[in-house]
Amino acid sequence: MLRTHLAGSLRAEHADQTVTLTGWVARRRDHGGVIFIDLRDASGVAQVVFREGAAAEQAHRLRAEYCVKVTGTVEVRPEGNQNFEIPTGAIEVNVTALEVLNESAPLPFQLDDNAGEEARLKYRYLDLRREGPGHAIRLRSKVNAAAREVLAHHEFVEVETPTLTRSTPEGARDFLVPARLQPGSFYALPQSPQLFKQLLMVGGIERYYQIARCYRDEDFRADRQPEFTQLDIEMSFVNQDDVILLAEEILTNVWKLIGHEITTPIARMTYAEAMRRYGSDKPDLRFGVELVECKEFFKDTTFRVFQAEYVGAVVMPGGAAQPRRELDRWQDWAKQRGAPGLAYVLVGEDGTLTGPVAKNLTDTERAGLAAHVGAKPGDCIFFGAGATKSSRALLGAARGEIARKQDLIDPNEWAFVWVVDAPMFEPTADATASGDVALGYSAWTAVHHAFTSPKPESMGTFDTDPGEALAYAYDIVCNGNEIGGGSIRIHRKDIQERVFKVMGISHEEAEEKFGFLLDAFAFGAPPHGGIAFGWDRITALLAGMDSIREVIAFPKSGGGVDPLTDAPAPITAQQRKESGIDAKPEPKGDGPAASAGGAADPSAS
Amino acid sequence: MLRTHLAGSLRAEHADQTVTLTGWVARRRDHGGVIFIDLRDASGVAQVVFREGAAAEQAHRLRAEYCVKVTGTVEVRPEGNQNFEIPTGAIEVNVTALEVLNESAPLPFQLDDNAGEEARLKYRYLDLRREGPGHAIRLRSKVNAAAREVLAHHEFVEVETPTLTRSTPEGARDFLVPARLQPGSFYALPQSPQLFKQLLMVGGIERYYQIARCYRDEDFRADRQPEFTQLDIEMSFVNQDDVILLAEEILTNVWKLIGHEITTPIARMTYAEAMRRYGSDKPDLRFGVELVECKEFFKDTTFRVFQAEYVGAVVMPGGAAQPRRELDRWQDWAKQRGAPGLAYVLVGEDGTLTGPVAKNLTDTERAGLAAHVGAKPGDCIFFGAGATKSSRALLGAARGEIARKQDLIDPNEWAFVWVVDAPMFEPTADATASGDVALGYSAWTAVHHAFTSPKPESMGTFDTDPGEALAYAYDIVCNGNEIGGGSIRIHRKDIQERVFKVMGISHEEAEEKFGFLLDAFAFGAPPHGGIAFGWDRITALLAGMDSIREVIAFPKSGGGVDPLTDAPAPITAQQRKESGIDAKPEPKGDGPAASAGGAADPSAS
Repeated sequence: MLRTHLAGSLRAEHADQTVTLTGWVARRRDHGGVIFIDLRDASGVAQVVFREGAAAEQAHRLRAEYCVKVTGTVEVRPEGNQNFEIPTGAIEVNVTALEVLNESAPLPFQLDDNAGEEARLKYRYLDLRREGPGHAIRLRSKVNAAAREVLAHHEFVEVETPTLTRSTPEGARDFLVPARLQPGSFYALPQSPQLFKQLLMVGGIERYYQIARCYRDEDFRADRQPEFTQLDIEMSFVNQDDVILLAEEILTNVWKLIGHEITTPIARMTYAEAMRRYGSDKPDLRFGVELVECKEFFKDTTFRVFQAEYVGAVVMPGGAAQPRRELDRWQDWAKQRGAPGLAYVLVGEDGTLTGPVAKNLTDTERAGLAAHVGAKPGDCIFFGAGATKSSRALLGAARGEIARKQDLIDPNEWAFVWVVDAPMFEPTADATASGDVALGYSAWTAVHHAFTSPKPESMGTFDTDPGEALAYAYDIVCNGNEIGGGSIRIHRKDIQERVFKVMGISHEEAEEKFGFLLDAFAFGAPPHGGIAFGWDRITALLAGMDSIREVIAFPKSGGGVDPLTDAPAPITAQQRKESGIDAKPEPKGDGPAASAGGAADPSAS
Repeated sequence: MLRTHLAGSLRAEHADQTVTLTGWVARRRDHGGVIFIDLRDASGVAQVVFREGAAAEQAHRLRAEYCVKVTGTVEVRPEGNQNFEIPTGAIEVNVTALEVLNESAPLPFQLDDNAGEEARLKYRYLDLRREGPGHAIRLRSKVNAAAREVLAHHEFVEVETPTLTRSTPEGARDFLVPARLQPGSFYALPQSPQLFKQLLMVGGIERYYQIARCYRDEDFRADRQPEFTQLDIEMSFVNQDDVILLAEEILTNVWKLIGHEITTPIARMTYAEAMRRYGSDKPDLRFGVELVECKEFFKDTTFRVFQAEYVGAVVMPGGAAQPRRELDRWQDWAKQRGAPGLAYVLVGEDGTLTGPVAKNLTDTERAGLAAHVGAKPGDCIFFGAGATKSSRALLGAARGEIARKQDLIDPNEWAFVWVVDAPMFEPTADATASGDVALGYSAWTAVHHAFTSPKPESMGTFDTDPGEALAYAYDIVCNGNEIGGGSIRIHRKDIQERVFKVMGISHEEAEEKFGFLLDAFAFGAPPHGGIAFGWDRITALLAGMDSIREVIAFPKSGGGVDPLTDAPAPITAQQRKESGIDAKPEPKGDGPAASAGGAADPSAS
C-alpha cells in the first residue's frame, strides 16, 4: 500500500508515530504561511499541517481535490484547537514529505455545494466523493451483505440467470438485442428472472436467490430506471407463511444496519381492507386519516353527487382553517388526477358545517356527519363519490396530501405491513387505465402475474368467477412504498392453462411464449413460491433518499441517457451490418412473429 | 413448510419419529407387492417403504420423478439391509400417508443415463436434478460466498455497474441494444466493467468488487459463452504486490472449499521466462517437459531448417517407442496448427539417434544433442525452428500433447503461477494472427489493454521503444488456464494519451470513445489497480468440469441459442417499430459514427 494508515483512523493514541496518508485535498487554509489541509480518504478526514521545509514550499501549489501522499508525525493538537465534530479532531499530522500523486483541474462544482442533477451525473466520479452520495453506495453494499447473511444461514443457493434471453411475460416493453448469428432474431433482456427461477425449482434447487438486474423499456416517468435490481427469491415445498417468515428475517437484518429493530411478525392486512381503509394497496400506516365509508350514511341523500356506487370521506385535521385559495388548489389537485373535483365540508369551531357541499345535506346528515367520519371542530371533511375504485384512489391520495400538509408523519417511524389476498384478476379496462400493459386480449388481466396461484379456496372457481378469485400473493409495504411482492406459484400444467384461458391467452400463444414452462410443469414440478424485493427502493429508504437514483452508482437521467458516458450512442456502419439488425426473417405463416416480420418489411412478400 | 425433515438428514437417531418428507421419486422397486422408493430432495436420498394400507395401494401408480409428500415412521433397517453407501442407509421410512404433489410425464432421458448436450440443455430443469449438474450449481454459490468473505473482511464495497452502457474498448464485438427513446442510437452491453470500476476509483470508493456479468459477441468457438462472469476487483493507492496478496487470499479461501490448501505466496514467473521455458503465457506447471533453447547448440548447423531465428526442442519421455503412424499423426497435428511439420529425433536404447532429422546433424551435434536437451535413451526429441513466437507456441502446445499422451499429469495436483512483466505492446500483425481484434490501426496493440500502466522503469521510454516496454500487469494461471488477470492502471491523463498514441488512436477517436475517462483523470484520479477473475472457469476447475457450460445454470449452446427457451427469437412488427431499430441518424459530418450512418443507409445523403 502507498499508505501506512487510513486518514479517518488517527487518534490521540497515534501521537508521535510517523504515518503516511494518501487521499484528496478536501480543504486548504493558509494561516500566515502555515498551510492546513483537510486530507480525505474513504475512511474520513484528517488535518495535515505544512509548517516548514520543502513540503511546506510545495504545499502552496495544492488545490482542491489534488490527490496526494503525505508523510509526517502525528501530533496532539493544542488545547482549544481540537475539533470535536470529527473523530480525528484531537490530532493533526505535521508533514515532512509531500508527493502530489495527481493534480486536479478546477472543479465544475464545489463538493460541498449543491449541484444540479445533470452536473452530478455527468461528473458522477466527483459526486461520489461527497459524503452523502458516497455513503449511499457504501450502504448498498452492506445491505447486500445483510440479506446474504440470512440467506446463507438458510442454505439458499445463489444462481445467476441469463441476461440474453427470450421475451418474458411481465407485460412491459422488452429491451431487445439483435442476434448476429441468427439475423432477424433477437434476445430480450429479462424484465425479471421469474421464469428461470421457476425452472430452477422444477430443477430441484429448492432454495434460490439472486440480486438480479432487471430491465424494462418503459417511459421514464417518476422514479424509474431502465435497469433496476431485485433481490429475487424462490423456494420449493413452502406455503405463504414460510416465504413471509424468511422475508421478515431479511428485512429485520437489513433495517438493523440503520439501528432500527423491526417488530415481527409484521401485521397483515387484506387487499380489500387496505382499499377500504386507505384507498391504496400500499397504505402508509405512519398516520391515520383513514377513509370512512359513507354510502350507508347517505342512503337517503337527495344530493345527486352522493347517489353513487361509492361515497367515502377522509378528514383533514385542522383543515377548516385553510384559506379559500388552498381549497381551490385541492380542486386543481383533484382535476390533475382525473376527478371532477374534491367535495368538502368545513367543520366550524362551533360545529356548524360550511362549504359548497354543506347546503346539499339534510338536517339529519348535517347533525350526524362529523360523528360518522370522526371529524372534530376545525377539521375539513373531503369526499370521494363515484366508481368505487377511482373514488377510493382519490381519497387515498388525498390522505397522503393531508399528512404532508399537516405534518402528520414522524420521519423516524417505519411502518411495515403485508397486503395479502389480492384479487387474482382485474378487468382489463382497469388495468389499462392504471398504466399497466395487459397481456392477451381478454376481459381479465392478472393483478400480480400469470404464474400466481389462486388461493386454495379459489382453486375450483377462479375461471368460472374470475372477479371473486383471490391470489395466493403477498406484498410488503413500508411507509407507503411497495418494497417487495411475491406469491405461491402455479406448479401444475392444467391450472396454468386454465389461468391463461381466463386471461384470453390462446393455447397457441401460450405454447409460443411459455411452452417451455408448461413443458417443465409436466415433469413433477414441485409446489413453490417466492418473493422479489425492490432492492433500489429498499436501499434508498435506508439511506434516507427520495430517489432510487441516489443508490445506483451510475444511474440514467431522463430519457435513459447516461450523461457521463453519453450512452446511448450511434453505431458504425460495420456494427450495424454485422449485427444483423436489418435482416427480416421470412414470414413463416404462423405465430405473431411471422406475421409481424411481413408487416414490418413492405418489400417482403 | 410442507415437510418436517430433509430426506438426506435422517439417521438412526430419528428412529420411531413420525416425519413428513417431500421430493421426487428417484427409483421405485416392487418386492412382492412392497414398494420401495428412493425419495430425493436437495439434501439427498432416503428410502421410503409402502408396506400396507391406502398409501401402499396408491404407491403402485408412482413413476419416476413424480413429486410426492409422504408421512411415516423412521425405522432402523434390519441387519443386512443397510446401505453404507448413502448417509441415510441405516434407516427407512415406513409410509402411512402419500400425497402426489405433481405427476411426471415419461422422461426424455433417464436421470442416471448419459444424455446428449442438446437434450440436457433443452430439459435443463431435469438435468439439474442429477447429482453432478446440481452439485456444480450449488458449488458455484459457495464459491461466491468464499470470495465475498475475504472481500468483506477487507472492507470492499460491492457496486453494481450498468448493463446498458456505451461501447467499451476491450476490442471484441459488442452486443447492441436499440434505444427506443433515441431512435438510431444504441446501448452496448459491457464487455467488462473496466471503465466504470476505474471511474469508481476516481470517485474515491477505493475498494470495489462485483461479481459482474460480461458480454462479448464473438463466435462460439471452443468453450466461450456470449455472457460470462468475472469477479471484478479494483483498489486505490496500491501497487502490484497489494493486488496479488488479496488475490491469493481469495483463491486460497475458494480452493479450501474442495479441501485444497494453496501454498502461498504463489510463485511468480516473468512473461519472458514463461515463453522461453514453456512456450506459453499460461504454462501448465503440473509437469516438466520444458522447452530447451537450441539456437546456440546448432550455431554451426548445415541443416537449413535449423538456420532459423529460433531453434528449440522438447523431449517426449519414452517417445522413441511411438510407432510410425503415431509419428505421422504428430505431423498432421503440427500442420493443423499452421506449422509445416514437427521435426523429431528418436533416441535409441543404445543412444543412437534415428528419424529423418538425424542424418542432417553433424557428428558433434549427434554426440551432444541428448545431453543438451536432457533426453534419455528411449525418448523422442521434437524440434521447433522458425520465428521465435510461433515456434515456441508450437513447442508449448507439443508439451501439452506429450503430457496427455504419456499421462504425466497428476489429476489431483493444483499448480498456480503468476505471470508478470508482460510486454506492454505487441505488433498488431501478431495480435491479429492470434485471433484478437486490434484497437486502432497502429503497428502496436496492447497485450493487456489500453489502460494498463507501463512499469515504472518503462514510464519514460514506452512510446519511443514500445517493443521493449513492460506492462505493470499480472496474470494468474492454474494448471495451464488463465484464471485471472489484472494490472496497475494508468491514472494520469498525459500518460493515457501517450499510450493511445502508440496504439494509433487519434486524439479525436480517444475523445469520442473514452473522453469521459480522460476527463475523469483530470480531477485528481488516484493511483489504482485491480484484477478480474474468470469466475466460470474457476468454478469449473473446482467442480472438476472441463466446460464452463457445466457451471452456468442456463448456458447457451453453439450459435448462442438457448435450446430451452428457444432464444433468440423473431420479434413482432410492433416491437420492431417501437424499438427504433430501423431509424438511422442523420450524418453529423464528423466522427466514425456519423460517416458510418451514411454508409449504412444508401438512401441517406
